[in-house]
Parts: sequence; C-alpha cells; structure tokens
Amino acid sequence: MQEAIRIIGIDPGLRRTGWGVIESLGNSLKFVASGTVTSDGDADLASRLCQLHDGLAEVVHVYRPDEAAVEQTFVNKDAVATLKLGQARGVAMLVPARAGLPVSEYAPNAVKKAVIGVGHGEKQQIHMMLKILMPKATFTGNDAADALAIAICHAHQRGGQKLRQVMAMKA
Amino acid sequence: MQEAIRIIGIDPGLRRTGWGVIESLGNSLKFVASGTVTSDGDADLASRLCQLHDGLAEVVHVYRPDEAAVEQTFVNKDAVATLKLGQARGVAMLVPARAGLPVSEYAPNAVKKAVIGVGHGEKQQIHMMLKILMPKATFTGNDAADALAIAICHAHQRGGQKLRQVMAMKA
Repeated sequence: MQEAIRIIGIDPGLRRTGWGVIESLGNSLKFVASGTVTSDGDADLASRLCQLHDGLAEVVHVYRPDEAAVEQTFVNKDAVATLKLGQARGVAMLVPARAGLPVSEYAPNAVKKAVIGVGHGEKQQIHMMLKILMPKATFTGNDAADALAIAICHAHQRGGQKLRQVMAMKA
Repeated sequence: MQEAIRIIGIDPGLRRTGWGVIESLGNSLKFVASGTVTSDGDADLASRLCQLHDGLAEVVHVYRPDEAAVEQTFVNKDAVATLKLGQARGVAMLVPARAGLPVSEYAPNAVKKAVIGVGHGEKQQIHMMLKILMPKATFTGNDAADALAIAICHAHQRGGQKLRQVMAMKA
C-alpha cells in the first residue's frame, strides 16, 4: 500500500514567512495546516532570524513533514531587499534540512503553473485553485496561500503527471 | 577587576565563511583562533547551509565567545550573488544568536577604518595591521583575516576610543 507523503511548503520572508502542510497520496491532495511565522520589525536582525527559526522549527516539530519545498525567488532589483530575503530564505531552508528533510526549490512561475496551469496569474486565482484542489484548506493571507501552492507544486513534481490530470478534471 | 570579553567575528559567504575569535581586555587585544568553514559546492543549497551551520556551531561551542560581529555587506550588483550571500549571512547570524550572543553588524568601511585607520584599503594592509595589533595571530586566507578584522572592529566600537589610541601608538 502506498503511503501518504507529508509536504511542507515555505514562502520565506523576513517579516512574514508563510508555511503550508499538505499530504499527497497518489493523485489526491489533503490539506493539513497552514500559517505564517512573523518576526518583530523593531528587533535586531539576528533576533528576527531567531524568531523565524524558532517558529518554523515548531511547525516542523508539530506537523512532522517528510519533505520540504521552498520558493526560489531571486528576481529583485533592490539589493537591500534581496539580501533581507536571502537571510530569511537561508533560515527557511536550514530548518527543514537540519530536521533531515530533503529540501526542493521551485521558481515562482513553476509554482503558479502547478496550481493555476500557467506561469503567471493573480493571487486571487491561486486562492481559488487552492480551494478547488483542497476544499478543506484554510489560510489567512497571501504568504500561507503561496506556501500551500509551493507544497502542491512539489507534490505535482514528485508525482509526475497524475496530479495534472486531476487538476484538469477539477478546473 | 575587568574581565576579558571574547569576540567572534564572522565574514559570511556560501562557499567560505571566515571566522576569527579574539579577546579584548581594556585596550589590549589577544588572538585566540581563526579559520574558515567551507561548504561543498556540489551539494544542494540546503545541505550547504547545514554545513555552514554545523561548522560555525562547532566553533561557537569550542571557543565560547561572549559577543559576535558580522560584516554588513549588501553592495552587490548581481541579484543571484546577493541572494546567495544573504542565505549564508542568515545562517551566520542565526548561529551565534541562537547561542544567546548579542550579534552586531558592521559595514565593510567601518571594519577597514577600525583596522587600518581609513575606510578603504588593500587586503594586504589588513593582514599587516592584524599582525601589528596581534603579533600571535595566525590566519589562512582573506576570509579568516577579514573575520578577525570584524572582531577587532567590534572590540573597538564597544571599547570606545581606547583602542584607537593604542593603534595610533603601534602603527
């Protein structure tokens, strides 16, 4: 019998890091949980990175995912913003890696393509498709929704074409 | 009696992260150790961040510094390189912060000014001044030397003007 794979998707950001946990079994997807880890904008950088670390480590501890997927963002014209994102992203990748999870990276357009069928689209389209793919999914805000989309992208990639067919039927 | 403060300076980089530990007591500086933590360029990003984490955590465990200082680099025209640096830097700041150390950040020109007296200069000048300030200092490569310079910058900043006077006498 095939076992469900539990996947955590992470959308990293210094102020807000979204996370979403799903289960993938064959061509079915099941929502488990989602949320956002925030850091205190008034705290120094090192403390903020600790806050992100501790929040994500808690999520990994509680939901015990088998694999992790992180958005691969690097298109940002502002070097200061890119460095900030990089710092948050370093922590977001480190936490699941230290817990022994394989960590995959996906480009934003691959994530969109996996969820809404094309490589570009509005946040609203992603929210709608998440509800179609996982009717029981609950998420507050774009960061958690994006994290769920990243997890679905990983389920899709690791499961080959099966999921795409289901999505084509449901959409 | 005044107690020596042990400082770790860190020069973060994904491939090579330099570290240097010194002791600062009044206006004297003492070299403790220095080195470089490297990551395997053939490994995936998450594993490389783990390697940097584990290497730095080992250094902090062995040398038990009281305070940490990290170079504040963000001037890089290449977004991909900036993101890589950011990811390494996130880990480099997280490790001492999680160990309970206060982590300070210094701009590269502040580091150069603290060690060679001006905000610009060649690597060779930094190496020379390190040897004048701490005759027993040993370091292999620019990353470890830069890390020692960052530690000295922090000793200088926290100790006010005293060190600057000593440096003026020795230079």
